[in-house]
Amino acid sequence: MPAFTKRLPSVVISNLKPRIENGRYPVKRIEGELLDISADVFKDGHDVISVMLLGKQVGDAVWQAQKMKELDNDRWGATVSFKETGTYLYKVRAFADLFETWLHDFERRLTGDQEDFSTEIEEGRIILAAAAERAKSEKKQQDAEAIETLVKTLTKAKPTHVPKIFEEEQLHALLGRYPDMSLAAESEEFVEVRVEHERAQFSAWYEFFPRSAKGSGTEHSTFRDCLPRMEDAKKMGFNVIYFPPIHPIGVSHRKGKNNSVTCEPDDVGSPWAIGSLEGGHRSVEPALGTVDDFVWLLKETKKMGMDIALDFAINCSPDHPYVRNHPEWFYQRPDGTIKYAENPPKKYQDIYPLNFHCDDWQNLWNEMLSVVQFWVDKGVKIFRVDNPHTKPVAFWEWLIAGIHKDNPEIIFLAEAFTRPKMMQTLGKAGFTQSYTYFTWRETKWEIMEYVYELTKGEMRNYYTANFWPNTPDILPFHLQNARPPAFKIRAALAATLSTSWGIYSGYELCENKPLEGREEYLDSEKYQLKERDWNKIGHIKAFIFRLNKIRNENAAMREYANIEFIATDNDEIIAYYKWTDDLSNIIICVVNLDPTNTQSGNLHLEIGQMGIQPGRPFEVVDLMYDETYQWRDSTNFVSLDPNTKPVHVLKLVRS
Amino acid sequence: MPAFTKRLPSVVISNLKPRIENGRYPVKRIEGELLDISADVFKDGHDVISVMLLGKQVGDAVWQAQKMKELDNDRWGATVSFKETGTYLYKVRAFADLFETWLHDFERRLTGDQEDFSTEIEEGRIILAAAAERAKSEKKQQDAEAIETLVKTLTKAKPTHVPKIFEEEQLHALLGRYPDMSLAAESEEFVEVRVEHERAQFSAWYEFFPRSAKGSGTEHSTFRDCLPRMEDAKKMGFNVIYFPPIHPIGVSHRKGKNNSVTCEPDDVGSPWAIGSLEGGHRSVEPALGTVDDFVWLLKETKKMGMDIALDFAINCSPDHPYVRNHPEWFYQRPDGTIKYAENPPKKYQDIYPLNFHCDDWQNLWNEMLSVVQFWVDKGVKIFRVDNPHTKPVAFWEWLIAGIHKDNPEIIFLAEAFTRPKMMQTLGKAGFTQSYTYFTWRETKWEIMEYVYELTKGEMRNYYTANFWPNTPDILPFHLQNARPPAFKIRAALAATLSTSWGIYSGYELCENKPLEGREEYLDSEKYQLKERDWNKIGHIKAFIFRLNKIRNENAAMREYANIEFIATDNDEIIAYYKWTDDLSNIIICVVNLDPTNTQSGNLHLEIGQMGIQPGRPFEVVDLMYDETYQWRDSTNFVSLDPNTKPVHVLKLVRS
Repeated sequence: MPAFTKRLPSVVISNLKPRIENGRYPVKRIEGELLDISADVFKDGHDVISVMLLGKQVGDAVWQAQKMKELDNDRWGATVSFKETGTYLYKVRAFADLFETWLHDFERRLTGDQEDFSTEIEEGRIILAAAAERAKSEKKQQDAEAIETLVKTLTKAKPTHVPKIFEEEQLHALLGRYPDMSLAAESEEFVEVRVEHERAQFSAWYEFFPRSAKGSGTEHSTFRDCLPRMEDAKKMGFNVIYFPPIHPIGVSHRKGKNNSVTCEPDDVGSPWAIGSLEGGHRSVEPALGTVDDFVWLLKETKKMGMDIALDFAINCSPDHPYVRNHPEWFYQRPDGTIKYAENPPKKYQDIYPLNFHCDDWQNLWNEMLSVVQFWVDKGVKIFRVDNPHTKPVAFWEWLIAGIHKDNPEIIFLAEAFTRPKMMQTLGKAGFTQSYTYFTWRETKWEIMEYVYELTKGEMRNYYTANFWPNTPDILPFHLQNARPPAFKIRAALAATLSTSWGIYSGYELCENKPLEGREEYLDSEKYQLKERDWNKIGHIKAFIFRLNKIRNENAAMREYANIEFIATDNDEIIAYYKWTDDLSNIIICVVNLDPTNTQSGNLHLEIGQMGIQPGRPFEVVDLMYDETYQWRDSTNFVSLDPNTKPVHVLKLVRS
Repeated sequence: MPAFTKRLPSVVISNLKPRIENGRYPVKRIEGELLDISADVFKDGHDVISVMLLGKQVGDAVWQAQKMKELDNDRWGATVSFKETGTYLYKVRAFADLFETWLHDFERRLTGDQEDFSTEIEEGRIILAAAAERAKSEKKQQDAEAIETLVKTLTKAKPTHVPKIFEEEQLHALLGRYPDMSLAAESEEFVEVRVEHERAQFSAWYEFFPRSAKGSGTEHSTFRDCLPRMEDAKKMGFNVIYFPPIHPIGVSHRKGKNNSVTCEPDDVGSPWAIGSLEGGHRSVEPALGTVDDFVWLLKETKKMGMDIALDFAINCSPDHPYVRNHPEWFYQRPDGTIKYAENPPKKYQDIYPLNFHCDDWQNLWNEMLSVVQFWVDKGVKIFRVDNPHTKPVAFWEWLIAGIHKDNPEIIFLAEAFTRPKMMQTLGKAGFTQSYTYFTWRETKWEIMEYVYELTKGEMRNYYTANFWPNTPDILPFHLQNARPPAFKIRAALAATLSTSWGIYSGYELCENKPLEGREEYLDSEKYQLKERDWNKIGHIKAFIFRLNKIRNENAAMREYANIEFIATDNDEIIAYYKWTDDLSNIIICVVNLDPTNTQSGNLHLEIGQMGIQPGRPFEVVDLMYDETYQWRDSTNFVSLDPNTKPVHVLKLVRS
């Protein structure tokens, strides 16, 4: 006969959700957010079962229990909230509830022809007395006495009066605190949750090249020149300043203007071709200043309530110190020379990719980790990671976990524009935020479908979208040679559809000149200093300021997944609303997707879900333009002229 | 710096499917069936990857590899088949394919302006030479020489001729046999498959009470009286004979006719109230004969190509030996007496339930296992398990695994009519077949939805449905006082919608008298001997014979999940077809769901999926009535008179 090593479970508990890849990766949330946890729980026979969610922060000794409620069809759920950052674990415990089962059966017995209930009352007495003992052993004297009083009442009661004794809900709560859990079963699975700071999810990014801070096309700016830019960004309401790589730029095969393979003597090169005789990833391009200058600027920026995000780009120029000191970290040709980057037939001779699976991979990986730690130690809290999808996912999982071990607050933004599963897996593997396909989602249906995918499906639990209308690499076709309304529309969509968004500088000036036939900028700042009048006529800084102000002042705009679309009669008008769970803050966004023509139509609000009474008028205040509209019921008319008012961002005011 | 304990994977492999509850339970298949296995596989960068499915039978030393193909969006798949019963494991291995990547890059280089390819040809030479070395070390001299010939051709080739060298698909297969797998990654997950005998899935059950074999209402039949019944069942085409419990029946609180609490001296009692002074679960009711008589009957039945299924009902009458010898295995009242079964206010005083979580549970569980093993040792291969949902799921998982350890061919049918998740979990936990909700699915949409749930969703991988139009416990309302066409219709649906079906005897005689207002039989055989003329006028044995004959003679009817519904113009006509993968056998079933009126309408066949040429006529032969119809294209007319021809079961004949 088979031997038993343990008691086998009396209750089936399975299918815990949410779990990412069966618990391989944690679910993500931020402080203050809620998470619904659910499981299938059932037992053989007719017992009433009690189901608890047990949770604790990793490191805590004690599990905290909360009751789960039956949702439907043997599925049980509970909602948890997170007061502080950290890693949390949840499991489910369930057992046949002796008291509730006894009471339930007793009530049903009364409907039959049974006359003598003495045995059943004695059974109840035994169950209650045991609960009183458990209360005593937990030193809950008051509870024990309350239960003992119940015992006395029960033993004296007429059978038909028994249900009355336990009518009050608080008595069930009392007895529920001291159940017999000797046959309790626990889930084999856990739900693991990584809870991060709010900025992991709520951020507005402004990217600029510090070397062009002064707006001169000939004079290289330094970190010391950057404060006016910081102030301008602050005035636009941004809270993250993102710098392309600040490290020494290689000279071998340096690219010239517009990505030319030949470069002129005064060409500054691409900041992504990192490393020169002046140093590598721990050094700063001398033309920008020193590491100390950067640290000064970082402190000044923090004083302004903002942060600087550095670019972690694992590219080496042929002049990088690694090439001299660790040629074994690179791919080599049969003749022993080091391979430059290629995507045949394209060649990137100014960049040497690292071989993450070389024989000396352990030292290479550790070196990469120490580079990030170097800047963390200087005070950097945010990294935008360049092309993470061209390095092993396992490397990122290892590196981010290594940094988070002592610095869990560090934010990593994945700059991956690639196939869906790679982008998703980078999110699972540890990236805090991710670039998205928003940049190319233009029509109402494209946008709706994508936002639903991000916020309503499994991605919501591991992938935090950061919406960018442009980047130094991407001037999408719909912005090429476009007029300011197009820039306003895309900014409004990015800032209100997602809790994190960003622009690459020049966007606020509506820079719109492409390299012919490509989604790139003409005279791209990647390869040259850029002359700019930062207050050029026609800029949309005030518009951007309003967007960020609305985001900062309305709690609904900080809710990542609380977004629903509103039906409209006109496919050129997209509308959606965001809300706080208590409905105290509801923001309705209406955007004309057509940058050329006025578009009009009715919105059809789900007023019930918004807590609006049918038939009663209510006000919506356009926070972009300080205008108030009187609306009533679900159907209300809007008309948006892109030249004067391409969007409404309406706050619901209850009368 | 963190230390590394192993090389981290170069390829992401995840989301292996199918896996039941993340691999907690195995996927089920039968011999000869196919299974599609798929996984997400992708790698950073631009390498061409090679993805293999590795599989083996548990116990084998060596994994067999087969190529997986990219399906879509980084999902890779392969189809496996099973030649024999057993447990199989599959995992996925993937790696960057050096040769294919090199060739792919080479071809793209040729589209650019590169002139000197000597380095790239040398790289190719090194890759090929290494493959030749691997072939040699595997003692594949011929392959090694073939590769070395390629090396020579390559080193002499003009660059533009290089792609031509590798044009033949077989060269890719050759090199694919000797790849550099030093950086191969393997999935962390496995797909586990339990492969069973065909009868686990394909069976036709006939249930009768051996005590009523002779059809006498006064004289108790014995096992020795059962052969004529067996022959009749055989003539109807059944291959499993299922007996209600054959053990001694208790006398204390024995139930009388029609479940009366008082019993007359000559009442035979319910076979499910097991145990008397004559013995318990290892004994046979003396009125039926001896264990030897049963073994004789079992052998005779097997000679006829059929099997006997026993009923494993864990109920004890108050007279069961366990009650005397192991009172600790039962639930006890405060006064020390043993509790009878209850579902308050209903009482079942003739039955004592066992307490599977009593202090002596280990001995109790082992005793239950040894009871099943006792009958297995007598030659029983099939058990119908009574009310498994009132015993712990963990118990069943343990018991079935215990029996399957030495007797993997044993079939367990779960008689659970309860909530969906319990029924599903019993299937996952080891039950071979399961009763279903078919008994109550009447309308076209109910039937379609249910069959889709069983065959197209996750249930297909762990839950094998056995469709019963009736049982001794259930005379559904739609058969109460119904005429023979209703019985024919439900039999035809059961026999053709599922690969396993069964009837409780009397069905073939169209027994239709209910206990007023309930879904039970009047004068139920559960409580009394049943007088019957087994050849009563109006029986539908020939109809049932045809159904089973069609099932036995057409391979399509043995395919569990190969079923698709056919659109019809008339909701009273349900139509569907089953097919073999090579389309050599296609059976089209058309059933009039209305037992009273003729129903007519068009069927709309998906002729493309059936391999039928548009515009060309084809024949369908009605295997129920030996009639042939000329059809053409997708739309064809049917008319079914329930009194003469309630169904078509049509075999497609290609012209």
